Amino acid sequence: MMTPGETWIALVHHPVYDKNRKIVATALTNLDLHDIARSSRTYGLAGFLIVHPVAAQRELAQRIAGHWLTEGAEMNDFRRMAIERISVVATLEEGRALITERAGKPPLLVSTSAQRDPQTVGYRALVREHTGPTLIVLGTGWGLTEEALALCQRRLAPIQGASDYNHLSVRSACAIILDRLYGDRED
Amino acid sequence: MMTPGETWIALVHHPVYDKNRKIVATALTNLDLHDIARSSRTYGLAGFLIVHPVAAQRELAQRIAGHWLTEGAEMNDFRRMAIERISVVATLEEGRALITERAGKPPLLVSTSAQRDPQTVGYRALVREHTGPTLIVLGTGWGLTEEALALCQRRLAPIQGASDYNHLSVRSACAIILDRLYGDRED
Repeated sequence: MMTPGETWIALVHHPVYDKNRKIVATALTNLDLHDIARSSRTYGLAGFLIVHPVAAQRELAQRIAGHWLTEGAEMNDFRRMAIERISVVATLEEGRALITERAGKPPLLVSTSAQRDPQTVGYRALVREHTGPTLIVLGTGWGLTEEALALCQRRLAPIQGASDYNHLSVRSACAIILDRLYGDRED
Repeated sequence: MMTPGETWIALVHHPVYDKNRKIVATALTNLDLHDIARSSRTYGLAGFLIVHPVAAQRELAQRIAGHWLTEGAEMNDFRRMAIERISVVATLEEGRALITERAGKPPLLVSTSAQRDPQTVGYRALVREHTGPTLIVLGTGWGLTEEALALCQRRLAPIQGASDYNHLSVRSACAIILDRLYGDRED
């Protein structure tokens, strides 16, 4: 059985597709950092990894997080509590190594995608079937590349609403995924 | 049975509390508009009402929406599809009147709050029990005031994660609420 305390989330800025299916590195978005940190903290996750190959962007992420851990902390303690579980890494492989070190064994990498695929696993099914550290991998831009997907051993079913339109923001998709995995659902 | 096609969502900027429980009007946030429009469209809602008492802020909301309906539309058709269901109103009462006119009868107003309350209703229970137009009311800032809550006939159960920390952004909370009401849950 998966537990929130052994679950990490990674927000990947490279390798992802742009809208023309070109492989790019996307820019860090301040609000992604805050919203996903707050969602991760709400669902009790072990940590939130920001994955960016560009050193200046990693420094920016550290600086934003640092602000809320120091001068911003007095004003807004709930932001500090969310931000303190952020780690910034250059690659998904580096993120996996960091979790392996902290958890004592390598995490299962689980990808997420808006695309349908016959090989996907359901949310509650994944929680039931897997035990041990887990890294949920989210892509920015137009989604994780085939190369990034190939690093992951499992793939979550896409979120379907009541329509064929599935252009949730990565912030919204992350919130829904965590709620489907670990929320106090009535059903 | 509630249906997405008869459901609206309102993002209320006044009356809401600030962190000192003072009643304020919050500033329009560009990303709230986009994220909630995209979530509303994904779950097939009838519309998304932006509620702001300040005329200049309502004009700004119209201008942001207008951009994506005209020059931005070619670049990004999925944004246009989300944005076109936005309406901008001054008060929650005005929003209710607008829905009454469009739906032919007044909507049930359903509030949302991070606070626990014995009078709340579950998500699937609400969908089962109510038939007809519905307006889900979200507060910005530190949440809807007592006065705003009193306008609503029902109140959804707060979202609980795996911890006592419940500081989701309004964008994330909205996504989770719509998924709990109308998502294709496996359970």
